[in-house]
Amino acid sequence: MNHSERLAQSGELLTSAEEKNVMAYKQALIVRTDLGMGKGKIAAQCAHGSISAYLKADSESRAAWVNSGMEKVVLKVQSEKELATLFQKAKKAGLPAAIITDAGHTQIAPGTKTVVGIGPAEEDELDALTGDLKLL
Amino acid sequence: MNHSERLAQSGELLTSAEEKNVMAYKQALIVRTDLGMGKGKIAAQCAHGSISAYLKADSESRAAWVNSGMEKVVLKVQSEKELATLFQKAKKAGLPAAIITDAGHTQIAPGTKTVVGIGPAEEDELDALTGDLKLL
Repeated sequence: MNHSERLAQSGELLTSAEEKNVMAYKQALIVRTDLGMGKGKIAAQCAHGSISAYLKADSESRAAWVNSGMEKVVLKVQSEKELATLFQKAKKAGLPAAIITDAGHTQIAPGTKTVVGIGPAEEDELDALTGDLKLL
Repeated sequence: MNHSERLAQSGELLTSAEEKNVMAYKQALIVRTDLGMGKGKIAAQCAHGSISAYLKADSESRAAWVNSGMEKVVLKVQSEKELATLFQKAKKAGLPAAIITDAGHTQIAPGTKTVVGIGPAEEDELDALTGDLKLL
C-alpha cells in the first residue's frame, strides 16, 4: 500500500493530502478501552494527549505537522500495561510522547492513566511503534 | 489544599475548579451530534479543534492554560447551523476559535464541519458563550 492509500485508509487526515515528496508527519493517540470511558471523556483525554505530545516535539516537527494538516490517528489498547509499554517504547525511540493521568473527577478513579499521545513524528517511526494497533 | 497542591495531586487537571484568585483559563470543544460520528472520529476531530484553537490564542493565554492543567470541556450541538453560530460569536467576542472541516475519507462527506474549538480563554468569557450547552 502506498502512502496516499494509507492516508486515505487511515481516515483521520483532516485537512489535506501530503505531497509524495514531503516527509509525512503524524500523531497517534492511543486510548484504553478497558476503562469504559464515554465518548466525551475520550475526546477530552485525547485532546489533552494531543497537545501534551505536541508541546514535547521539536519546532521543526511541529511546523511540518501543522502545515501538512495535522494528520492523526486514534488507536486502542486494552490495558494500562499496554499503554505504559507503548509510552516507554516511544520515549526510548526518542519520539515526543505524553501519558495522560486523569484527575478522576468523573467516571474513573483519580490517577488513572487513560491516553498516550505520540508525535508529531515521522510516519515511519510512528508506524513502527503503533502499526499493529487497531483503530478506536 | 491550595492551588499548587491540587495541581500536583491531580497531575493532569482536566476539570476541577480553579482557585478564586487565579484567573481560570479553559477551552471548550463543541461537537455536532447529528453526524453520527464514532468515538474515534470524535476524538480525532476534538484533538484537531483543540490544537487549532490553541494555536490561535495569544502566548499569555496559552501559558496560563498549559500551566494550570489545560482544563477543557467537551460540549454538544445538534446542527451545523448551531456550530457555525457559536464559531461566529466566539470570533466576534475576540476569543481564539477554530472550526474543523473534515477531509471526508471516512464516515462523513468531505467538507463537513464537525467541531469548534474555543479557547484557551478566560473561563467567564467562555461560559458566556457556551454555558447553556450540554456535555457530550
